Amino acid sequence: MSEILIRNVLHEGQPSDILIKGNRFSSISPAGSGMSAETVIDASGMAILPPFYNTHGHAAMTLLRGYADDMELFKWLSEYIWPYEDKLTPEDIYNGSRLAILEMIKSGTVFFSDMYFEIDETARAVDEMGVRAALGVTFMSNHSKALRDEKVAYMKSWKDRTNGRIQLTAAPHAIYTADAGQLMLAANTARELGMKIHIHVSETATEVQNSIKEFGDTPVRYLEKLGFLGPDVIAAHVVHVDDEEIEILKKRGVTISHCPCSNMKLSSGAFRADAMVKAGAKVTLGTDGCSSNNNLDMREEMKFASFLAKVTTGDPEVLPAQQVFEWATRNGAEAFGIDAGVIEVGKLADAILVRLDDPKMTPNHNLISNWVYAADTSCIDTVICDGRIIMQGRHVPGEEEILAAVKRN
Amino acid sequence: MSEILIRNVLHEGQPSDILIKGNRFSSISPAGSGMSAETVIDASGMAILPPFYNTHGHAAMTLLRGYADDMELFKWLSEYIWPYEDKLTPEDIYNGSRLAILEMIKSGTVFFSDMYFEIDETARAVDEMGVRAALGVTFMSNHSKALRDEKVAYMKSWKDRTNGRIQLTAAPHAIYTADAGQLMLAANTARELGMKIHIHVSETATEVQNSIKEFGDTPVRYLEKLGFLGPDVIAAHVVHVDDEEIEILKKRGVTISHCPCSNMKLSSGAFRADAMVKAGAKVTLGTDGCSSNNNLDMREEMKFASFLAKVTTGDPEVLPAQQVFEWATRNGAEAFGIDAGVIEVGKLADAILVRLDDPKMTPNHNLISNWVYAADTSCIDTVICDGRIIMQGRHVPGEEEILAAVKRN
Repeated sequence: MSEILIRNVLHEGQPSDILIKGNRFSSISPAGSGMSAETVIDASGMAILPPFYNTHGHAAMTLLRGYADDMELFKWLSEYIWPYEDKLTPEDIYNGSRLAILEMIKSGTVFFSDMYFEIDETARAVDEMGVRAALGVTFMSNHSKALRDEKVAYMKSWKDRTNGRIQLTAAPHAIYTADAGQLMLAANTARELGMKIHIHVSETATEVQNSIKEFGDTPVRYLEKLGFLGPDVIAAHVVHVDDEEIEILKKRGVTISHCPCSNMKLSSGAFRADAMVKAGAKVTLGTDGCSSNNNLDMREEMKFASFLAKVTTGDPEVLPAQQVFEWATRNGAEAFGIDAGVIEVGKLADAILVRLDDPKMTPNHNLISNWVYAADTSCIDTVICDGRIIMQGRHVPGEEEILAAVKRN
Repeated sequence: MSEILIRNVLHEGQPSDILIKGNRFSSISPAGSGMSAETVIDASGMAILPPFYNTHGHAAMTLLRGYADDMELFKWLSEYIWPYEDKLTPEDIYNGSRLAILEMIKSGTVFFSDMYFEIDETARAVDEMGVRAALGVTFMSNHSKALRDEKVAYMKSWKDRTNGRIQLTAAPHAIYTADAGQLMLAANTARELGMKIHIHVSETATEVQNSIKEFGDTPVRYLEKLGFLGPDVIAAHVVHVDDEEIEILKKRGVTISHCPCSNMKLSSGAFRADAMVKAGAKVTLGTDGCSSNNNLDMREEMKFASFLAKVTTGDPEVLPAQQVFEWATRNGAEAFGIDAGVIEVGKLADAILVRLDDPKMTPNHNLISNWVYAADTSCIDTVICDGRIIMQGRHVPGEEEILAAVKRN
């Protein structure tokens, strides 16, 4: 079993030695423990923190970063995004996914929940680069019966070859693109196979209005009536919901993926963070795709989430640093059944090492406040996922080739 | 006269050679020009952009980064900020200012407009580190007559010893801390000496309510009646204003320093960006102090400004990347009479060189979009201010000593 010793690292305010055996944390002791291991990282001047778990996105859309901004949603989709996507080859998806994963690793993210096409290409990139992912098999009404059968068969025959780093999800896109039959086919297939379900819910006011027109009720109530909702559902966005809908989501144990940057950039609306917290709903953070953000930086997403909550409620005490940090870390891991997201003996060894000698991290009155509100992710020196070092000294193996491949596109 | 040649740099989409003579841009030619100079920077793979001009802040408050967050304004000020500030020595102000300037240089800012105490200490730090600043001489009602006289005398006798990099401003803190006599003493002294005037205006709803109670009118109207407003005034925040007040500010040529992060973190309210643009008001960006932000990163400030404007208006076309970029660069320089903020022959040589091989800058469909929405400032390689290289390869001379001095505090 491989062993990594992280020596003299700041952990919960104390200089510590942390030993990883295989893919789990095996020991956390005061620094100077005298422990040794085959691989030793001298982390003097660094703190260890859990990395990020990004619960909603479309990784390969990094290729469309900056391709079209600052415009109305339908024009943006129909004149720019869809025509561009129509031309993407499997190789493009592979390269776009690698670029996304490279950016995620460099900004401290070790897991992402994805919804796109050409899953095998994204899985290949995830496998090679050593991160975790939940890859969504999309279900949409415009799919043929044959394609639908193929998707169900794909899910049933799918085997993870990465020691648990990759899982599939059933991903009916949204209630306005997947009819009731598609929604429940996706949900039932996932439930039969013990997989999670990933869907966009109540992202825009238009979606809610159309839902009332077409289905006689709001999206959350419609999904509740269908029997779609449950603790295996990850609902992205969830911007336009009333108090009763939040109660339904809480009661069903649904996980919410809050994407503040995307909601702000597309003017979708302001997430009801305070109401979610008061109801005890399970909230996580996502970046959404790069064309509506335009990056995959979960640190920035935490700051946006907290500040948006404060300004929209008029209450500076809403969503403090520690709480939004938990949304971005342990809550995200928990939602996908990943036994990680905290630095604790027995947990899966996912971690980042953060340099404290950065001006933005100085002085260090409060590490989590600095991390959420002040830092940028360039102070991350090392990223560890599943007991493997995937970045050290800010270098990710193969990064030059990944950038070159995207530039050739 | 010193000469710097920036070779093979991307400028407005074209590989270019850019020559700086003394403190001004002297020539911009297509790359391969054959020009030479005593100092040559090979900027292959980098783009040149104007740096940031941060129009509102309290530099030495970097010492309070993360010291108190997520709480109601008065408790925050009275129980945390003021007691901390009471203990600050001149040496602390010097060290806090150096830390702020270090962070600003590393994030591409070459100018800041400041309002704090112990001006000479901040001026010393600015002088040593090679940036620009407008340092505010504060005027408040609780100052004695003797102190007031001393401040006026200080302004009258002040001489810049930095070839124009440092200017003084008259800085009556706000209408609720400086009475009419103080406000006009500050304004008249500044006007007599050709200095700018820096003040907080309509930051919170409470300020506006109290102004109506005490002065019978809103802050902007009250200042207008006093004869305070003019093209030499830089008004920070300006959150709670109606359309007519925006017209008054526009008519008087007042510059507005929009501080989105501070307004969001303290729940002060949402700036009316769209109304400001429609009225043709002069808008710039500021970070405010580190305890209400909690960094001095103008790149992040641009993204917050744009996204806040989009989500509060419900219009994704409001405040596009190019516009908010101009607020953060040329508008800020113009407001303080600095002949810079664009990369053009004849302008003062202020610039940043940005690495394009960063994942967040890839692909490069639109450089300004990437810079505003996707980048972080760690992709800045080089910072030039007033024709001098003040950071290269991300290293700022003396940075280790600056961080060590803060840690000794």
